[in-house]
Amino acid sequence: MLSDHFQNGVETAKLMWSRIPATEEVVEEEEGEVGTSRKGNGGSTVESLDYEVVENYAYRQEQAKKGKLYMGYVVVVKWFLALLIGIGTGLAAVFINLSVENFAGWKFSLTFQIIQKSYFAGCLVYILINLVLVLSSVYIITYFAPAASGSGIPEIKGYLNGIDTHGILLLRTLIGKIFGSIGSVGGGLALGKEGPLVHIGACIASLLGQGGSTKYHLRSRWLQVFSSDRDRRDLVTCGCAAGVAAAFRAPVGGVLFALEEVTSWWRSQLMWRVFFTSAIVAVVVRTAMGWCKNGNCGHFGAGGFIIWDISGGQEDYSFAELLPMAVIGVIGGLLGALFNQLTLYVTHWRRNYLHKKGNRVKIIEACVISVITSAISFGLPLFRRCTPCPEFEANSGIECPQAPGMFGNYVNFYCQNKKEYNDLATIFFNTQDDAIRNLFSAKTAHEFSAQSLLAFLVMFYSLAVVTFGAAVPAGQFVPGIMIGSTYGRLVGMFVVRFYRKLNIEEGTYALLGAASFLGGSMRVTVSLCVIMVEITNNLKLLPLIMLVLLISKAVGDAFNEGLYEEQARLRAIPLLESRPKYQMRYMTAKEACGNQNVVYFPRVVKVADVVSILRSNNHNGFPVVDHSRSGETLVIGLILRSHLLVLLQSKVDFQHSPLPYDSRGDLLPIRHNLNEFVKPVSTKGISLRDIHLTPDDVEMYIDLAPFLNPSPYVVPEDMSLTKVYNLFRQLGLRHLLVVPRPARVIGMITRKDLILEDNDDQAAVELQSTSVRGRQANRRRIKEKGDAQQPLLDGLL
Amino acid sequence: MLSDHFQNGVETAKLMWSRIPATEEVVEEEEGEVGTSRKGNGGSTVESLDYEVVENYAYRQEQAKKGKLYMGYVVVVKWFLALLIGIGTGLAAVFINLSVENFAGWKFSLTFQIIQKSYFAGCLVYILINLVLVLSSVYIITYFAPAASGSGIPEIKGYLNGIDTHGILLLRTLIGKIFGSIGSVGGGLALGKEGPLVHIGACIASLLGQGGSTKYHLRSRWLQVFSSDRDRRDLVTCGCAAGVAAAFRAPVGGVLFALEEVTSWWRSQLMWRVFFTSAIVAVVVRTAMGWCKNGNCGHFGAGGFIIWDISGGQEDYSFAELLPMAVIGVIGGLLGALFNQLTLYVTHWRRNYLHKKGNRVKIIEACVISVITSAISFGLPLFRRCTPCPEFEANSGIECPQAPGMFGNYVNFYCQNKKEYNDLATIFFNTQDDAIRNLFSAKTAHEFSAQSLLAFLVMFYSLAVVTFGAAVPAGQFVPGIMIGSTYGRLVGMFVVRFYRKLNIEEGTYALLGAASFLGGSMRVTVSLCVIMVEITNNLKLLPLIMLVLLISKAVGDAFNEGLYEEQARLRAIPLLESRPKYQMRYMTAKEACGNQNVVYFPRVVKVADVVSILRSNNHNGFPVVDHSRSGETLVIGLILRSHLLVLLQSKVDFQHSPLPYDSRGDLLPIRHNLNEFVKPVSTKGISLRDIHLTPDDVEMYIDLAPFLNPSPYVVPEDMSLTKVYNLFRQLGLRHLLVVPRPARVIGMITRKDLILEDNDDQAAVELQSTSVRGRQANRRRIKEKGDAQQPLLDGLL
Repeated sequence: MLSDHFQNGVETAKLMWSRIPATEEVVEEEEGEVGTSRKGNGGSTVESLDYEVVENYAYRQEQAKKGKLYMGYVVVVKWFLALLIGIGTGLAAVFINLSVENFAGWKFSLTFQIIQKSYFAGCLVYILINLVLVLSSVYIITYFAPAASGSGIPEIKGYLNGIDTHGILLLRTLIGKIFGSIGSVGGGLALGKEGPLVHIGACIASLLGQGGSTKYHLRSRWLQVFSSDRDRRDLVTCGCAAGVAAAFRAPVGGVLFALEEVTSWWRSQLMWRVFFTSAIVAVVVRTAMGWCKNGNCGHFGAGGFIIWDISGGQEDYSFAELLPMAVIGVIGGLLGALFNQLTLYVTHWRRNYLHKKGNRVKIIEACVISVITSAISFGLPLFRRCTPCPEFEANSGIECPQAPGMFGNYVNFYCQNKKEYNDLATIFFNTQDDAIRNLFSAKTAHEFSAQSLLAFLVMFYSLAVVTFGAAVPAGQFVPGIMIGSTYGRLVGMFVVRFYRKLNIEEGTYALLGAASFLGGSMRVTVSLCVIMVEITNNLKLLPLIMLVLLISKAVGDAFNEGLYEEQARLRAIPLLESRPKYQMRYMTAKEACGNQNVVYFPRVVKVADVVSILRSNNHNGFPVVDHSRSGETLVIGLILRSHLLVLLQSKVDFQHSPLPYDSRGDLLPIRHNLNEFVKPVSTKGISLRDIHLTPDDVEMYIDLAPFLNPSPYVVPEDMSLTKVYNLFRQLGLRHLLVVPRPARVIGMITRKDLILEDNDDQAAVELQSTSVRGRQANRRRIKEKGDAQQPLLDGLL
Repeated sequence: MLSDHFQNGVETAKLMWSRIPATEEVVEEEEGEVGTSRKGNGGSTVESLDYEVVENYAYRQEQAKKGKLYMGYVVVVKWFLALLIGIGTGLAAVFINLSVENFAGWKFSLTFQIIQKSYFAGCLVYILINLVLVLSSVYIITYFAPAASGSGIPEIKGYLNGIDTHGILLLRTLIGKIFGSIGSVGGGLALGKEGPLVHIGACIASLLGQGGSTKYHLRSRWLQVFSSDRDRRDLVTCGCAAGVAAAFRAPVGGVLFALEEVTSWWRSQLMWRVFFTSAIVAVVVRTAMGWCKNGNCGHFGAGGFIIWDISGGQEDYSFAELLPMAVIGVIGGLLGALFNQLTLYVTHWRRNYLHKKGNRVKIIEACVISVITSAISFGLPLFRRCTPCPEFEANSGIECPQAPGMFGNYVNFYCQNKKEYNDLATIFFNTQDDAIRNLFSAKTAHEFSAQSLLAFLVMFYSLAVVTFGAAVPAGQFVPGIMIGSTYGRLVGMFVVRFYRKLNIEEGTYALLGAASFLGGSMRVTVSLCVIMVEITNNLKLLPLIMLVLLISKAVGDAFNEGLYEEQARLRAIPLLESRPKYQMRYMTAKEACGNQNVVYFPRVVKVADVVSILRSNNHNGFPVVDHSRSGETLVIGLILRSHLLVLLQSKVDFQHSPLPYDSRGDLLPIRHNLNEFVKPVSTKGISLRDIHLTPDDVEMYIDLAPFLNPSPYVVPEDMSLTKVYNLFRQLGLRHLLVVPRPARVIGMITRKDLILEDNDDQAAVELQSTSVRGRQANRRRIKEKGDAQQPLLDGLL
């Protein structure tokens, strides 16, 4: 009799578990199992009675989930959200860009006006404006949105790998990131806005996915169809791609960056949605740019947006050039690895010593960095002697010197003669976008002197290292391109001098240098390659970029890990890499568990015991055992700490009897809203301290069967840890039960068993060895419910 | 005591299994477990004695595997093979291209010479030349390499999904594919050479991976380091990418195509190697093209290689144009889905009726198709009235009419007047590359009449459907581009007429049409988008291509599956899709097994029993059970049919005693070469009929413990089939054991347990809850062996 009860309980558990969003298995499919739950619980009289207790919304949701209409609704919402993410990220990018361009443009033109009279006053004004901008940024970050500092990519990577870092996806963080970026980039620090844009895309996606901000009561119920972790992570992946697409106007590069660098699990269905989001971003940005060209976006609005068109440059290359290009790759690998290592030390020191002293120190630090950066970028060009302008053809369109405060090469800065320009000011005393455009520019051979480039390289590299980790939003893409294109142009100068060929452009080498430094630092290959091609709008250099990236990544990998991995490790984000460690080959699953103490729950447990067990350890999942009639124990599932806390808080499932509900002939009433069990993304969830239980409460019992996951993944105790790792990583698990060797095998599943034909006749022919009758009955049952697979919807999901 | 023996046996099994390449788990990591096997087997005296029996090579291999040097060697070979695959595929592509271009060029110029005198004679010669070329192709396919017919992509997709189709990766197939493609494409059939190039790349990769062809004794031993399925599949993935990269000169597109369409499992480490292969292909093809430009490749060699540069075309687009573009997407989806459905019917009919009648029928069929194609492409333009040449500016570079036999627009064909051209002949009576170039061409508005385009569309669509499935190598990319660009240009004509704007180019619409048809038929998005951009060398149209692709794929998905999936299903290749079917949500693992009869092996089994069990069923894997001291059965692992057959054939493991070897105090001698257990890729493997056993043999015993897989993946019986499917699919399994619910849990593995720190101190701190002592001892053991992880090598793997 007890065995029957047990069986019954497990059956119900399976049904109920299917209602609780599987936060355990991150990537698990679980939308569909929901349909059966009401049916399984039988009688409709009980249902209607109980639904007066639960929220009306949940009831409607339940009802709706049965129909095809709801499936269609979910699909529409998914794509609608992808659209919104694209539009939102695109607009955020446009807003940041316009603000930065206008601030910077205004700053430079003011400074240029003043230095016509006094260089000292100009310097002071320049430093002050930068200081104000940086101060606003660091103030926002320290007092309003601490999670918005840095690039955010390591944290997002961690989130998509399965680790929730507190606060990274809040509305507050989003706002802080947007306004902080404007301050830090506009303030001329050695950092970029591309990493922050990825974070912004992810925030927008996450907020849309939960239907708005919980804290500020900006939630919309009809968007709350995504209750599982998986759906949220999919949206965040879309957001990341949108961020990259918006930052570089590189939609394909965005998709690939999300795929290669950020996400840990990837399904080809998702690819399509990510692709759509990126396309939307491209359209939004393009529309906004068109609008700005008509002068609607302020005086300097038409600039901005990284497209360093080098299509007018080098068309061809000879084999002899492959050697200097390989040298660029090696330099990129070395400097990139060094950058990762130095920033690791600097950030480590900051986190452990400097930033522990409070917010005031963070602000002072950022201000000091700002003043130093401004002083160097203004002061260093003063020491540089000006160069006479070269002769140009009449219609080349290049002016020398440029009018002060205008964008372009050949800036006249602190020069005696009207026909002279200051090559260091051209790159240093300029916005980063324009500096890169000048470095990439073709038909400007001999514009820069080796000393200027070398001085700039050393100074800017040091500034980038020091700035990294300050309490402002900071990306490493644009500084990386600056550094790389500087030494690339240096190499290009030597090539032009020694190879003495006409069609070699220094700008091409600058581009390759930029690619090599990013490859050596971030260790991204395919997506970076596509991004470089998209931002320079030149497909012809693709094989060269590939070559340089391969070399620089290989060289960099010889020394340390990629920038984001190093930073993630520093922040104690335990990323599971795609490869198991070498040592795992010599270990078994049992050894990995060690002699850890497994804490079981019985099926029906006293509330007091639950509390004491939860208090006694910090495990997040507990196996639940039950006894069969013959007295043997059987593991009937896994219950999560978070779900137990929800049960303790709501108290509605407490019962007086220590018997399972089904032994009393009761049908399980559904007292919970599905959303109660969803882990909130923006808060830390319920804590044991928040739950107040009366002395009466703790004497009651809970039957855990309806709430447990009845079939967690298991591995036998002596499985190699490499295999275990692959299982864990590939399926995105959070818990894995290690069990003894089985005593018998019930069946073997092969590929054949997993190919269900839609056609019944075919199934009967193909699967003769299996129970055709039972299977067909099953199928019939499914068909009766009208839940047969919809090719249209399925393809869109 | 027996229990000890059991334990001992299992230990050894674990060690031995690690020596046998895991053909069961496709993607399993298993290089590394090898190192322990010799150590585990203990005494060195026994070893040296036994090694006189086993082949010397295996001994050296074993020895070498212990050292770091061997690891480095494997890495070098891996990258060297990627290099060779790139070079080989690039050269094959160049060879095919040059041959096709030269044959076709010679054919057209001869025909043009003859038609100056007589159109009838010209037609006859044209038909005859095409017939001879097609005949050579179909003869090669039917009598020499039957597996080389069709595009080969469905079969390669199946191979990478885990299904071996016999003969698709042989040297014979490679040769047949190369020469067959030249005949079929050169013969003017409505098919392309791109699909075959993917197959060629895969063949080259597979042959290199096994160190040459087995049958023709062209094997090189020092390349045979890849014994596992996983490594071979990785190489084939590289080969596919190389094929696409070579076909379209689109290296990034190749990487993405391999990722999106072909492969089923993907690791980011592999991405890098695939990327490298594609870059090599790009360099090889570019070098060859440069060499050909100097006239080294025959009269017409400089043509070929798909780059339809449209960078001179439309620069911008208005919002009003999005509507006709969406219409193109819808048309593409409809026509693509129709194409898939029609080809499915045609191929089904061919396979089940026509091709069963023998090779002669296949040859006649191909010849008939060739004659019809030639007659239509020559005859149809004759009925078309010629158009007077439009006026051109003097320096536009466009001539009208073209000199006969030359490439380009405005061909004079059967025109009365010298100043006229035949627009239908421009696209129909031309090589496909040139026809596409003409359709894509900018600055040629009003060149084509709507009637001509419509006639061409209908005829070519029908020809493409009929040709699909004939016994010749055939790709669908170029025909798809032809069809798509025709209706795209048609839509473009209407847009030009109704929108009356200056900067709209019909060629842009032709490009979008091409993308839409490919999207509607193949349902590939991201990679196709990148390929289209790379072959047209125009980045500006990227968002438009994305939009069109999204629409056409969505429309197509409403009707049927993609071309390759439909064809794979027709060929009974059971592809496991990435999504589990909807019905699986209502099924458990136990139901999937049905009431199938599980056939067990005992640990020590009589040879006669092995033979009779293998004969009685066709299972490919069998659980092995043993009895513990208390009489309980325990599942100790899984043995594969193929491994049993190897044991039966070699006979060296037969023993007289029915006791396990370790109960007799013996140490297990190693009598097998590792390679014996590797499943041959090119043959069907050993059959039971090939094995001859004497009456003495069948009375002997085999101890299976050393040869079984001691820890196959298991699932509990009541796990949802959706979860089972994900496990099976994500890990690329072939067998999965369904076992009863466990009675107890030995431990729980969480993320924390899988993050092993390299640093011992950190490990001690982080993993306090687990057995630090045991773990450290383990690590020390590993370190003593000098096998600690090498970051440099690890990154390169």
